[in-house]
Amino acid sequence: MSTESHLCEAAAFDEAARAAVYAAIFSRRDVRSQFTDRPVDEALLTRLLRAAHHAPSVGFMQPWNFLVIRDGGVKAQVQAAFARANAEAEAMFPEDRRPLYSALKLQGITDAPVNLCITCDRTRGGEVVLGRTHNRDMDLYSTVCAVQNLWLAARAEGVGVGWVSIFHDTDLRAILGLPDHVVPVAYLCIGHVDQLYDQPELQVKGWRDRLPLEDLVFRDRWEQR
Amino acid sequence: MSTESHLCEAAAFDEAARAAVYAAIFSRRDVRSQFTDRPVDEALLTRLLRAAHHAPSVGFMQPWNFLVIRDGGVKAQVQAAFARANAEAEAMFPEDRRPLYSALKLQGITDAPVNLCITCDRTRGGEVVLGRTHNRDMDLYSTVCAVQNLWLAARAEGVGVGWVSIFHDTDLRAILGLPDHVVPVAYLCIGHVDQLYDQPELQVKGWRDRLPLEDLVFRDRWEQR
Repeated sequence: MSTESHLCEAAAFDEAARAAVYAAIFSRRDVRSQFTDRPVDEALLTRLLRAAHHAPSVGFMQPWNFLVIRDGGVKAQVQAAFARANAEAEAMFPEDRRPLYSALKLQGITDAPVNLCITCDRTRGGEVVLGRTHNRDMDLYSTVCAVQNLWLAARAEGVGVGWVSIFHDTDLRAILGLPDHVVPVAYLCIGHVDQLYDQPELQVKGWRDRLPLEDLVFRDRWEQR
Repeated sequence: MSTESHLCEAAAFDEAARAAVYAAIFSRRDVRSQFTDRPVDEALLTRLLRAAHHAPSVGFMQPWNFLVIRDGGVKAQVQAAFARANAEAEAMFPEDRRPLYSALKLQGITDAPVNLCITCDRTRGGEVVLGRTHNRDMDLYSTVCAVQNLWLAARAEGVGVGWVSIFHDTDLRAILGLPDHVVPVAYLCIGHVDQLYDQPELQVKGWRDRLPLEDLVFRDRWEQR
């Protein structure tokens, strides 16, 4: 069969479908506090993982694995690793920022019914990977694309996702038993939500504002403004 | 106004809207050859950039800039940088893979009406960024989330996107005039498409197959299989 027979129509979506995609993009939030107790069933979780698995990957490397964590003992260890790192983090901020920093809830590890670690196997696909010959980090970037696919699918399913990044890499590796060639790219808290903030939580709570898009767009090359 | 007043309903999308989000995810392709000549107008491009700008970012850092490249001279320089790097890349593959490698078209730099470089400013938000205290690469990951948002919005708009990664970083920096603290995360080729492959092009053309999802999912910790 010729490869051209695999080409098919790729029209723009109709207005309602286009609006649905933008709604997922604009209403998606980084969730820490809104998880409900409702269990996340396996069929739903598999739909989310399938969305992640259909992310683009360099050289079709598909470097990701999905560690689905429901065990309370593992969650408790991860929570403790977060608490240690977060205490260090707080001390790094200027004194006037510390009260607000410590008032922010930055994770929902034990609140969320499911935790998910998405990893990147840096050896998958062998020594030389198409498209990764000149930028070794393309496999990590592919893995992040999988995270974002899952995040948007989750929004459409009424499921909230929060990305927790305040860990020592060595702690997470030890708890999850990761081999050296595997990088824990994202640690996600996942659960059903009934409510979300209408803007990013860090904006609602006065940490930082959204930048004007027009200030970020340049023409043809970098501009000094 | 209390922060709680910013909470709003976050139900699952209805069936048609959910299907639209999954359609964008599953039918999105890395496009190299299907770009039409139809111009990409500014209003459409702004919708795509707005989708990118609404990606999650660590500490709401929003580290991205968007370099919109329409100038033929700049595209020609980028194309030449690709050609140099790709000749080196080809030589890295085992001899039996080289004929297929060289038969693959891996970019549409001069075919696509618009090129877009999405960069990461590693100094944005100051010395200490919330959520980036223990993983310095979280800003790069945020920038990749912006790429994937744009890619999915583009699919819904009938616009194809191809990510070109075969460059020397130094070449791209010189051509685009990037300061040292700014990383070129993604170089994208963008244009309207009428047709897309029904599977990833590297699979259609026999480079590599999709892995079974169930082989990639582990429970609670890394599994040796």
